[in-house]
Amino acid sequence: MAAIKFQIEKRLKGKMGRAARLETPHGSILTPAFVPVGTKANVKTLTVKQLEEIGVQAVLGNTYHLYLQPGDELIKAAGGLNKFMNWPGPTMTDSGGFQVFSLGVAYGKGISKILKGETELLLPEAQDLRDQVSLVSIDHDGVMFKSNIDGSSHYFTPEKSIEVQHNIGADIIFAFDECTSPTESVTYQRQALDRTHRWAKRCLVYHQSKPENASQQALFGIVQGGRDERLRKESAQIIGQMDFDGFGIGGSFAKEDMNTAVEWVNSVLPDDRPRHLLGIGEPEDLFGGIENGCDLFDCVAPTRIGRNGSIYTKEGKINILNAEFRQNFNAIDPDCQCYTCQNFTLAYLGHLFRAKEVLGGTLASIHNIYFITNLVNNIRQSILEENFQSFKENFLRLYKK
Amino acid sequence: MAAIKFQIEKRLKGKMGRAARLETPHGSILTPAFVPVGTKANVKTLTVKQLEEIGVQAVLGNTYHLYLQPGDELIKAAGGLNKFMNWPGPTMTDSGGFQVFSLGVAYGKGISKILKGETELLLPEAQDLRDQVSLVSIDHDGVMFKSNIDGSSHYFTPEKSIEVQHNIGADIIFAFDECTSPTESVTYQRQALDRTHRWAKRCLVYHQSKPENASQQALFGIVQGGRDERLRKESAQIIGQMDFDGFGIGGSFAKEDMNTAVEWVNSVLPDDRPRHLLGIGEPEDLFGGIENGCDLFDCVAPTRIGRNGSIYTKEGKINILNAEFRQNFNAIDPDCQCYTCQNFTLAYLGHLFRAKEVLGGTLASIHNIYFITNLVNNIRQSILEENFQSFKENFLRLYKK
Repeated sequence: MAAIKFQIEKRLKGKMGRAARLETPHGSILTPAFVPVGTKANVKTLTVKQLEEIGVQAVLGNTYHLYLQPGDELIKAAGGLNKFMNWPGPTMTDSGGFQVFSLGVAYGKGISKILKGETELLLPEAQDLRDQVSLVSIDHDGVMFKSNIDGSSHYFTPEKSIEVQHNIGADIIFAFDECTSPTESVTYQRQALDRTHRWAKRCLVYHQSKPENASQQALFGIVQGGRDERLRKESAQIIGQMDFDGFGIGGSFAKEDMNTAVEWVNSVLPDDRPRHLLGIGEPEDLFGGIENGCDLFDCVAPTRIGRNGSIYTKEGKINILNAEFRQNFNAIDPDCQCYTCQNFTLAYLGHLFRAKEVLGGTLASIHNIYFITNLVNNIRQSILEENFQSFKENFLRLYKK
Repeated sequence: MAAIKFQIEKRLKGKMGRAARLETPHGSILTPAFVPVGTKANVKTLTVKQLEEIGVQAVLGNTYHLYLQPGDELIKAAGGLNKFMNWPGPTMTDSGGFQVFSLGVAYGKGISKILKGETELLLPEAQDLRDQVSLVSIDHDGVMFKSNIDGSSHYFTPEKSIEVQHNIGADIIFAFDECTSPTESVTYQRQALDRTHRWAKRCLVYHQSKPENASQQALFGIVQGGRDERLRKESAQIIGQMDFDGFGIGGSFAKEDMNTAVEWVNSVLPDDRPRHLLGIGEPEDLFGGIENGCDLFDCVAPTRIGRNGSIYTKEGKINILNAEFRQNFNAIDPDCQCYTCQNFTLAYLGHLFRAKEVLGGTLASIHNIYFITNLVNNIRQSILEENFQSFKENFLRLYKK
């Protein structure tokens, strides 16, 4: 018996987008849906009560982080991720692949990630390093990586990633993949993609060998292939033919490539199952992802930028520390229904950030998650009401990147 | 017209304690009451909604901090502290004296405060330094101090402190005093006390010269005098004869001296007005303060120790990082009605602290403030029901310091 059920309610005319209902063992997700990231079994600075009040439908934990701390065995002993963090709704975990490659391999080499545009790319030095380190760290069977907490060595195989995700026990889990940078050569992309496909098959076989898990947890296969059309379509073809409950679209995109890559992929993937665009969540990207056929999105941006005082508005992002807000006793947006906008002024929020009070990050995160969640809800509504295009144009006319 | 009204409902037989109702322009406080500290116009890591859910009755802001950041003029422009932080209930501000003397004078000298026992005492070096610096920093009229934010110089007179507190606009404000250390000589205590009394008078005169403020804000005079019985009683006599709306009892106490000093003071102070024991809030001290006639208490301990993972229980404080809790899937206290205990396990809380997630401090602060607030509520109930003594004995038998 499948762990999830996916029912398309309405399709977007002339595009691949759709509004749907995804039923999981912990309740339904109305899609398109934005899923906040709860890296270490909490969405940073927020209680689950605050998440519920925002209207969050599901939370995504990071397998890499949870495996290292507190450990998947502890979460299993707690009764799974839902019980451990006391989140009643649907949960997901990624495969750990992205973090293993971006955090684990470069650990201790003084390399960190940078934000380029809106997507995370590795520094060129990290890329060089990875090319060397990868030779010894990645083998046919899996990846050796070092903990970003204590430098200890760990080995992830496809089977190990699924075993860890079974222990964590989220409703939707992902196959272990190699997430490549768009700056990699086509030769390397090809090698990595073949590996990702072999690993996807092994994840599926292992998952299906544990029917008590497979009946309660849906496994999504991940399409990779960088910015190359042939590789992307081939990956969608191969992954799409496997018996996954849904699909993830992975990769670090240069902003201008994203829509094209998603379109390539979703034109090939079977359209009866949910598609999750991994790590994407900026407003303009959500429109692109949705009209090109993606149903689910996760991103750390609303909380990460919120903790730095960057706040979404209908006119684009603002920096709360801007002097113009110092004596502004209005809400961020008086029409916004979030707790922050209903109760606090720009002047107060700016004060909290200047005074380095943690509450500033909490209130900014509440607003930012609400903003993105509400935007995706409105996009869904526009699909149902057949006015997606005008909603999109009106929104993007006002919204400055 | 007085800004507040104080009605004693029940007295504790054979002791000075009482249960009362204190009416302020922003609602009533049932006393004895614990008042959490919201230093910079927020109780650290908590939303006002969370404070309301905990059952907090009033919040105390720090004049020193608010004057420096965001500035009292900004808070006035926002409509006062209540509107600025959107806290609907009663508010208080201290006079700034404690912080001016403990933070301002020692700024930039590499001196910090230490916690000795449960009370804050200056390091001996700081004391020496203060003896020198005080010569040039304190004069008849007021105190020159340096900002702990940017080192800029500021001058507080009694009138200035009240002017700042009028701008901040709390329901209850305090006279500007000199808070001495118990390690000071009697000679110095005498000089400081005379100054505090002169300043108290000037605060009162200035306050009463602004009837629009005096009708909306109650002014409490502060009794000082260190650990010396004669000075304490004299201070209570002098301050008690002035036309204050209530009284504060100040000073950094060595733990064993506190009850004695409070008893000296409250045996002299008129008993028809509220008495606030400043900066005190540990369970065993609350019993002592209440039975010796104090009505109001404020303390940063519940939030400060909470953010460090120290948590109140009926059996005493526990450290959440203790290995014994790592796999403990019970609440801190299954009988506790706070949000944290109703929803999260010791294992989860410990994980959040190990992972350095801010949410750990939030959840610990919620529990700790609830614990202290609820304890004081229960003490109040025991006065009303005439079983204070047995309640106290039962509590303290179990509670290990």
